[in-house]
Amino acid sequence: MRRIAVLTSGGDGPALNACIRAVAREAFHHGLKVYGVRWGYKGLINGEIDELTSRDVGGIMNRGGTFLGTARCPEFKELKVRRTALRQMNQEGIEGLVVIGGNGSLAGALALHEMGFPTFGVPASIDNDINGTDMAVGVDTTLNTILDAIDRIKDTAASHQRAFLVEVMGRDCGYLALASGIAGGAELILVPEHEGPSLETIADTVVEAYTRGKAHCILVIAEGWKPGTQAVADYLSARKAELGFDVRVTVLGHVQRGGRPSAYDRLLATRMGAYAADHLIDGESGQMAAMRGNVLESFPLAEAVKTLKPLNLALLGLSEVMD
Amino acid sequence: MRRIAVLTSGGDGPALNACIRAVAREAFHHGLKVYGVRWGYKGLINGEIDELTSRDVGGIMNRGGTFLGTARCPEFKELKVRRTALRQMNQEGIEGLVVIGGNGSLAGALALHEMGFPTFGVPASIDNDINGTDMAVGVDTTLNTILDAIDRIKDTAASHQRAFLVEVMGRDCGYLALASGIAGGAELILVPEHEGPSLETIADTVVEAYTRGKAHCILVIAEGWKPGTQAVADYLSARKAELGFDVRVTVLGHVQRGGRPSAYDRLLATRMGAYAADHLIDGESGQMAAMRGNVLESFPLAEAVKTLKPLNLALLGLSEVMD
Amino acid sequence: MRRIAVLTSGGDGPALNACIRAVAREAFHHGLKVYGVRWGYKGLINGEIDELTSRDVGGIMNRGGTFLGTARCPEFKELKVRRTALRQMNQEGIEGLVVIGGNGSLAGALALHEMGFPTFGVPASIDNDINGTDMAVGVDTTLNTILDAIDRIKDTAASHQRAFLVEVMGRDCGYLALASGIAGGAELILVPEHEGPSLETIADTVVEAYTRGKAHCILVIAEGWKPGTQAVADYLSARKAELGFDVRVTVLGHVQRGGRPSAYDRLLATRMGAYAADHLIDGESGQMAAMRGNVLESFPLAEAVKTLKPLNLALLGLSEVMD
Amino acid sequence: MRRIAVLTSGGDGPALNACIRAVAREAFHHGLKVYGVRWGYKGLINGEIDELTSRDVGGIMNRGGTFLGTARCPEFKELKVRRTALRQMNQEGIEGLVVIGGNGSLAGALALHEMGFPTFGVPASIDNDINGTDMAVGVDTTLNTILDAIDRIKDTAASHQRAFLVEVMGRDCGYLALASGIAGGAELILVPEHEGPSLETIADTVVEAYTRGKAHCILVIAEGWKPGTQAVADYLSARKAELGFDVRVTVLGHVQRGGRPSAYDRLLATRMGAYAADHLIDGESGQMAAMRGNVLESFPLAEAVKTLKPLNLALLGLSEVMD
Repeated sequence: MRRIAVLTSGGDGPALNACIRAVAREAFHHGLKVYGVRWGYKGLINGEIDELTSRDVGGIMNRGGTFLGTARCPEFKELKVRRTALRQMNQEGIEGLVVIGGNGSLAGALALHEMGFPTFGVPASIDNDINGTDMAVGVDTTLNTILDAIDRIKDTAASHQRAFLVEVMGRDCGYLALASGIAGGAELILVPEHEGPSLETIADTVVEAYTRGKAHCILVIAEGWKPGTQAVADYLSARKAELGFDVRVTVLGHVQRGGRPSAYDRLLATRMGAYAADHLIDGESGQMAAMRGNVLESFPLAEAVKTLKPLNLALLGLSEVMD
Repeated sequence: MRRIAVLTSGGDGPALNACIRAVAREAFHHGLKVYGVRWGYKGLINGEIDELTSRDVGGIMNRGGTFLGTARCPEFKELKVRRTALRQMNQEGIEGLVVIGGNGSLAGALALHEMGFPTFGVPASIDNDINGTDMAVGVDTTLNTILDAIDRIKDTAASHQRAFLVEVMGRDCGYLALASGIAGGAELILVPEHEGPSLETIADTVVEAYTRGKAHCILVIAEGWKPGTQAVADYLSARKAELGFDVRVTVLGHVQRGGRPSAYDRLLATRMGAYAADHLIDGESGQMAAMRGNVLESFPLAEAVKTLKPLNLALLGLSEVMD
Repeated sequence: MRRIAVLTSGGDGPALNACIRAVAREAFHHGLKVYGVRWGYKGLINGEIDELTSRDVGGIMNRGGTFLGTARCPEFKELKVRRTALRQMNQEGIEGLVVIGGNGSLAGALALHEMGFPTFGVPASIDNDINGTDMAVGVDTTLNTILDAIDRIKDTAASHQRAFLVEVMGRDCGYLALASGIAGGAELILVPEHEGPSLETIADTVVEAYTRGKAHCILVIAEGWKPGTQAVADYLSARKAELGFDVRVTVLGHVQRGGRPSAYDRLLATRMGAYAADHLIDGESGQMAAMRGNVLESFPLAEAVKTLKPLNLALLGLSEVMD
Repeated sequence: MRRIAVLTSGGDGPALNACIRAVAREAFHHGLKVYGVRWGYKGLINGEIDELTSRDVGGIMNRGGTFLGTARCPEFKELKVRRTALRQMNQEGIEGLVVIGGNGSLAGALALHEMGFPTFGVPASIDNDINGTDMAVGVDTTLNTILDAIDRIKDTAASHQRAFLVEVMGRDCGYLALASGIAGGAELILVPEHEGPSLETIADTVVEAYTRGKAHCILVIAEGWKPGTQAVADYLSARKAELGFDVRVTVLGHVQRGGRPSAYDRLLATRMGAYAADHLIDGESGQMAAMRGNVLESFPLAEAVKTLKPLNLALLGLSEVMD
């Protein structure tokens, strides 16, 4: 192999730049040329592919986002579209591809592998919903961003005796809500994977926190939990008189995706990026880098994308005990 | 004077604890007893007043919020209610009151002063809308919190070629939007004090940023600007096809009020709190601490609450040049 | 079991408060009384033991340090001294002890266990040198603190074309140097576990970085590496004329131990503290909580303290490739 | 005027990039070409001068350091050397120069002005020692960096009952020590401008803090204070037995110069940079941008560099009262 390409795809997140850098430097170390694909699979199809120099990947490790850009590309599910992508890489003499992204992006890498093109994945998804790895790139920084917000909200909540509904990202996966809720000392955590208490029981939790003399009451809610943050807010304001606490809602939104990556994420992204490039060059394909304990292993993309990683629901119990 | 009280009132913000500490320590230094009033004027009326020890105000300087609690108290405009407050202080032998808060809170202090009770104010309002002082307590930390969010949003905006509408606090005053917009390099800033461009012109700004090759486009919008953030979002999505950028909205919300205070705010709060206690004890009343350049002066509460501090609209022009 | 105690011992670090809180709340949940021991084993010997209420452990999760205090206590190796400790606990009716600390502290817990007193450990050491667990409490926050310093130093280094020797904690263990060096993009990492290059080769690395056009050159050095940071500084200044870069030294010092704990550390400390209390109450003794992947397990204290956890020296190779 | 240049000179600090950007964008707005000089006056002499594009100054506002580089250049005091500089600018058709830096750098700008070449200064010095302006660029960020370190050190100090000597930058000027000491709640602040207490009295302060039950004792010492941090450390360790607290020393070092600039600094740097370019283009020379309250004014360089800005020693008294 003499030339490989790297792309970031799907939703962005922290430490993608650190990961691109690691892929490139590992490949340089093996004497290869490295190409950066702009805007994920979209750019791959359109041939937005440029050679990366060592300088291109210098000084980017501590920057949020991805300098290659990213995009969602649902049409990559079509065989015809993927053939266009292969033709583009062929024209540049590219013989392997590292894909950094979440489940959809890794499914794309798997599809290329099944068409006979060497690919290797790096799991990057702030939701930590990718099967086969303890952690995905970007999760740790996002957790710290959410926790920073929760700590701030607790300050204002305690100053006014308020209950806050804090909505965090996670359409199908409650990992961010669960982990930040425990780390932030939330009174209640609501995740898509678990039906959770009724609106009535939620209101009782708020009342109970007030009665126990708590200075504030924080509910962390994943955006994918049903019936949703607004339903809780509406229900609580209908029972306002009983609550003790005033209720406010904060939807954290896109701040969760940006920011200078944490030490954990930079180390993880660097290790995974180097692993992916190294193993791709060594002839492995259709795999992704997976962290198990402190050790990196290869994990089949076919397994990774088959299901979402299940949430450790035992931690919900821990959060109740800690409350 | 042998006993004074201190309260925080109105919306909370950073560095209130540092300010309470300074009031208390200055008064201790003069040999006085100091009383903390819980929940602002509400607690004053209800007699929620406790003596503060040196230990009570130790270790609080770096914590967000106010450990005394705060509340809005519209009924304090009634003479009868204020008489109750005076009676409560009388019962405890309290002879002076430091009020830390925004325009409404300082108006309460003025009213007590006009009833013959010695009061002194400290301007604390994240909006920086209090007349007579260059800066109010809490503004600087809030600006840094907003800027941190804008920096994060720029990361994700650039990764996806998106335009973001970032709504920040400021119902009547655009200071936070203006200052954070300049410090964050926003393409457009919309404030209540200035009609601003039409929706059409706003859309043109977004298109132009795209055409000029900008990686992202950030609009910082004060919550009090009319016709409002949602109106911009709706208009832009109706013209989606022309924009180049995808559009997203983030409403920062209550995270803006909390957090560990900045160096600037701790220094300002400490200086102003000590000044207020010192001058109250010295017999001044109906004044507030006002920062002019690097010097503290007394400024009449009657002047401070008469009007909102006008925004330096010349800075809007600067933001356009810097864009 | 009806009463357990908890102490923090040895060098302090982040997230100890979160861990104490978790021990206490888990025990409360089981209906037990919980006692906090002040100043580690020193306080245990002197009977500085107080019952903890739920309020005592509220609002402490996001604070650095340990509100119980900590100390080194070499005399705890003496049987006679440990007998005094057991007598003190006996007098209070305490039937089990959770020890939060590093190797020396856990050895103390093991010694008490071997005397028949139920103990359970939580590995807390910023050095990440405790055998049997992937991570110890406090490591992640400390890494982020170091990384923040390295990022700042890179700014000033690049502005002046300087090489910096950054000395970080780690007398016997280079984990902090290694992980922060990779996450910070250091040109060279020197750790006690590995002899490393000669002074001459180190100088060559600096020259080479300059020649390759690097804007700066960062060397991260563990304090326990021989011949030491100052020896490098002296050698480099003797060869100043050849280097290209000016050389500066920064010893990070005790800032590495403090600070608001990271999300990772709060989650780890909470899970480990709850695990320790739960298993101690269930009758386990002489064990510590150990994180393996995402799962907590019991690990024998006798194994944990036998050797230091070996450093993953393969990561040194990664750092060279990434440079 | 059709072409101006900009340089950063002397010690680096935060927000220099934001200032360069503002100079450039203001000049672009006036239709000028802008040239960036590398490595301060050194690069000016050597002709390291490149035209800056709008893209060159995009995305740099939130980065520490100066992308132009900086250097000290004592030889710029020589007339012959300055003539070389003028010739270099002449060759490029450059008709004016904005100098961003401290007293030495501004003296260079004054000297060029006195030779008839149009110059305008921006006061940038983390020491806040420049006469005529309330604040200099970089001070606020540095204060926050120091405060972050002090907060961390207090955590570990309280956990171990220690006294810490924290040495901060400031060879001739104690502003950073004074402001960070007050904001950080230090027990004692030692600055070059004030002889301060004897070593014996310093030791008494430590003893007294212990006796009063303080959890820790923090002394903030400017590096230029005599007899120096080490002398205090030595004296205190000789009287170790009486102190109560163990004593530790932390020298913060170069971390103080780097880091993402604060909101205050970005706003100040942007306003000052734009002001400097605007007034230089308008024909003013030999002046610098000076902040007075919230208003920018021109201030003669001849006045600015004549003396160091005096420290507000009244704040030392405040720090004693607050302790």
